[in-house]
Amino acid sequence: MAKNNSKMVEAITSMDEDFAKWYTDIVKKAELIEYTSVKGCMVIRPYAYAIWENIQRILDGMFKETGHENVCMPMFIPESLLQKEKDHVEGFAPEVAWVTHGGSEKLEDRLCVRPTSETLFCEHYSNIIHSYRDLPKLYNQWVSVVRWEKTTRPFLRSREFLWQEGHTIHATAEEAIEETERMLNVYADFCENALAMPVVKGRKTDSDKFAGAESTYAIEALMHDGKALQAGTSHYFGDGFAKAFDIMYTDKNNKKVYPHQTSWGVTTRLIGAIIMTHGDDSGLVLPPAVAPIQAVIVPIAQHKEGVLDKAGELYESLKKYGIRVKLDDTDNSPGWKFAEYEMKGVPVRIEIGPKDIENGQCVLVTRHDREKYTLSINDLGEAFGKLVEEKLETVRQGIYNKALENREKRTYSCKTLDEISEALEKNGDGFIKAMWCGDEACEDAVKEKTGVGSRCMPLEQEQISDKCVCCGKPAKALVYWGKAY
Amino acid sequence: MAKNNSKMVEAITSMDEDFAKWYTDIVKKAELIEYTSVKGCMVIRPYAYAIWENIQRILDGMFKETGHENVCMPMFIPESLLQKEKDHVEGFAPEVAWVTHGGSEKLEDRLCVRPTSETLFCEHYSNIIHSYRDLPKLYNQWVSVVRWEKTTRPFLRSREFLWQEGHTIHATAEEAIEETERMLNVYADFCENALAMPVVKGRKTDSDKFAGAESTYAIEALMHDGKALQAGTSHYFGDGFAKAFDIMYTDKNNKKVYPHQTSWGVTTRLIGAIIMTHGDDSGLVLPPAVAPIQAVIVPIAQHKEGVLDKAGELYESLKKYGIRVKLDDTDNSPGWKFAEYEMKGVPVRIEIGPKDIENGQCVLVTRHDREKYTLSINDLGEAFGKLVEEKLETVRQGIYNKALENREKRTYSCKTLDEISEALEKNGDGFIKAMWCGDEACEDAVKEKTGVGSRCMPLEQEQISDKCVCCGKPAKALVYWGKAY
Repeated sequence: MAKNNSKMVEAITSMDEDFAKWYTDIVKKAELIEYTSVKGCMVIRPYAYAIWENIQRILDGMFKETGHENVCMPMFIPESLLQKEKDHVEGFAPEVAWVTHGGSEKLEDRLCVRPTSETLFCEHYSNIIHSYRDLPKLYNQWVSVVRWEKTTRPFLRSREFLWQEGHTIHATAEEAIEETERMLNVYADFCENALAMPVVKGRKTDSDKFAGAESTYAIEALMHDGKALQAGTSHYFGDGFAKAFDIMYTDKNNKKVYPHQTSWGVTTRLIGAIIMTHGDDSGLVLPPAVAPIQAVIVPIAQHKEGVLDKAGELYESLKKYGIRVKLDDTDNSPGWKFAEYEMKGVPVRIEIGPKDIENGQCVLVTRHDREKYTLSINDLGEAFGKLVEEKLETVRQGIYNKALENREKRTYSCKTLDEISEALEKNGDGFIKAMWCGDEACEDAVKEKTGVGSRCMPLEQEQISDKCVCCGKPAKALVYWGKAY
Repeated sequence: MAKNNSKMVEAITSMDEDFAKWYTDIVKKAELIEYTSVKGCMVIRPYAYAIWENIQRILDGMFKETGHENVCMPMFIPESLLQKEKDHVEGFAPEVAWVTHGGSEKLEDRLCVRPTSETLFCEHYSNIIHSYRDLPKLYNQWVSVVRWEKTTRPFLRSREFLWQEGHTIHATAEEAIEETERMLNVYADFCENALAMPVVKGRKTDSDKFAGAESTYAIEALMHDGKALQAGTSHYFGDGFAKAFDIMYTDKNNKKVYPHQTSWGVTTRLIGAIIMTHGDDSGLVLPPAVAPIQAVIVPIAQHKEGVLDKAGELYESLKKYGIRVKLDDTDNSPGWKFAEYEMKGVPVRIEIGPKDIENGQCVLVTRHDREKYTLSINDLGEAFGKLVEEKLETVRQGIYNKALENREKRTYSCKTLDEISEALEKNGDGFIKAMWCGDEACEDAVKEKTGVGSRCMPLEQEQISDKCVCCGKPAKALVYWGKAY
């Protein structure tokens, strides 16, 4: 009981008290990261890395199903190569890390550590694409990138982060636009299904486009505290990069033309999104699809005859069924174990003690709402695995609905700037739905006067009003506005 | 036929004529890599990356089975951190890439791009290890590292390369030594089974140890041309790093003591080893376990009724069985396709034409020896998959035996320096087995006088003579000597 109590004392900051502190408490106490002596660079510890491996495995499968192949580009970009596309270099040069020396030798052309790899892919494409037969190329890579951010936070904004970057090149603009939208949908499906995180699909305004893109699409999620988080982006480049890098191919009519490109990416930020979407005052709550441990078995009165044996049988049954299961038979108290696996966000806990065994049952507790279920353990073949699998699906739906409710509760339709300020004042941060004339000056004015920036123009447009929320001129689009991570 | 002929004309350099040129021809023609504008950094193209993914999948499974967890450390090491272990910094500082600027700001403490991550793991261990309860930590990471090499060759020696680096920390020296040996055995098993590549397990001489290690173990393979290739290493550090980084734990007797460490790694070099162990004048020959395509189906007279349908059925049958199969139904000629998939090293090719269908069979040709087999296609359930799987195992054994024969033919036992020179002169490069007194001066002299360096002291020792091959003093160990990649 001593250990149990000490754990209780060490409880994390409550999210309502200080959301930012609650977040960093979880990140440390759930053993997700550890800081290093390099500011903004962190150790991703085994538990967090296992979440990332699950994200990778599922997404990589979705990429391959949609015809993509993995490659690996160098991590260095010569300064001269980075400079080839004007908008791109303007966007990225101020925030890259520069390698100036190899060993003791000074480099003639400085190298930056890739902040993103469009320029490298373009150089490669210019070498391998000659004919329409060489198109499309649907490439992706899983690597880390570096952006020299001033303010950093674990997962949300770090100087080095892990991501995947898809880079594709197509014969026509139509095909490239289709790809841009396809991958946005892949991201949205992944977030909604695997991460149980509702997202809004939309297009960024021009001021918020990726450096060098013709259009940028994004999925936006709303965190528990009402702040928005961009969870994935998909860019359409037109033929701008092709022109800058002199990539041309011979089409079917034997004419030399420019191909069209896209890129798209998600990052370890998704782990931050999971924490802030599903977590609570007891710690993490993990979506079953990416949880390193989906079910933990905690024996009760484990010194009593038969308890550990039966717990072992449950373990073997679930493992065989394909559930990621852990049996904790250490000598820590059950109470300590409950707190520990709640902190780690394990979706379901299974308790089994002498009484349960007598009754041919065990108790299953879902992490997110602490609902208790009694499961039969008379058939430890497929039947038991199926029962637990059903509960994992219950968790997925439960946390999805909870997140969706939060978003709905925190989404406000506003027709004037005053309405925006009032809504935020009264209900706290959230998504503001308001019309926009398309003018960047109004976008800036909304931000300045109310504090919310444009997040995206949702693909599913509504007509809340026919006037711009700021200037009153005819509205061009519905925009989601919010404060963002 | 035109395409077929044009392929024939473009044949690669023969390996006997110019082995180095043969190697780079394969690397380009099999579409494994493409050069970039950064010297020594390459694009790993989809076909090569798929080989690496298979290597990763199998090895990662073996690591996890032996209790290891994946983590991810930063890619940057502050200069002050790199300098903490004296031997280590001496070994690596001359060949690292230095980051001196973040954006436009000059860094106070330069950062090197990791050439290896012992120092980062040590910093992390000093933060998380306090008690014997925290030990062991069995960590691994899959990342890329940078070493500023002067001479570079694709896969064999590049400035950036992909690898895994295992880093473990243990309560006792015994445990750490056991781990060092365990991982050497994992590597050897992987190379012998998955890569069909025979290896010699041994210990490096002191002059060839990893910077900071107490002892370094390695597996050494012999390439087709008789040169040796170090295919994997496993290091025992004792408590040297722990002392340098002030990592201590409280043992069961409540005493503060130093833990003991290991590290071990294999790299994309293994792809180079596969090429030079199994390849021939028609191109790559891939071990089935890591081949992106294990079987390719080539329809013969595919315009004839029923041919493509039947080829499609074979494809579905093999796919369902779990074999990585490709059906090439493009309008290239069969001859062109044969040459193409031979270049790509696909282990078995399946030909199916109207005659075969009439006879209820198909023809299977093994890549490495072009042996033809007739397989029944009357039962396209598990039976057909099993037949093809058997042939994949035939290929594995066949290429293993071929490689082993090459090594045995090229391994020479020598008692004097003259015998070494004569053996190399007469038979070409290979492994020299010769006794050594343990003196570094003799090691250097052997190299200078015969051109071969010490590769390792094999774990399976023999007593070829009782005198050192160089100085004639009492021999301490059998050493494998050779020229190395």
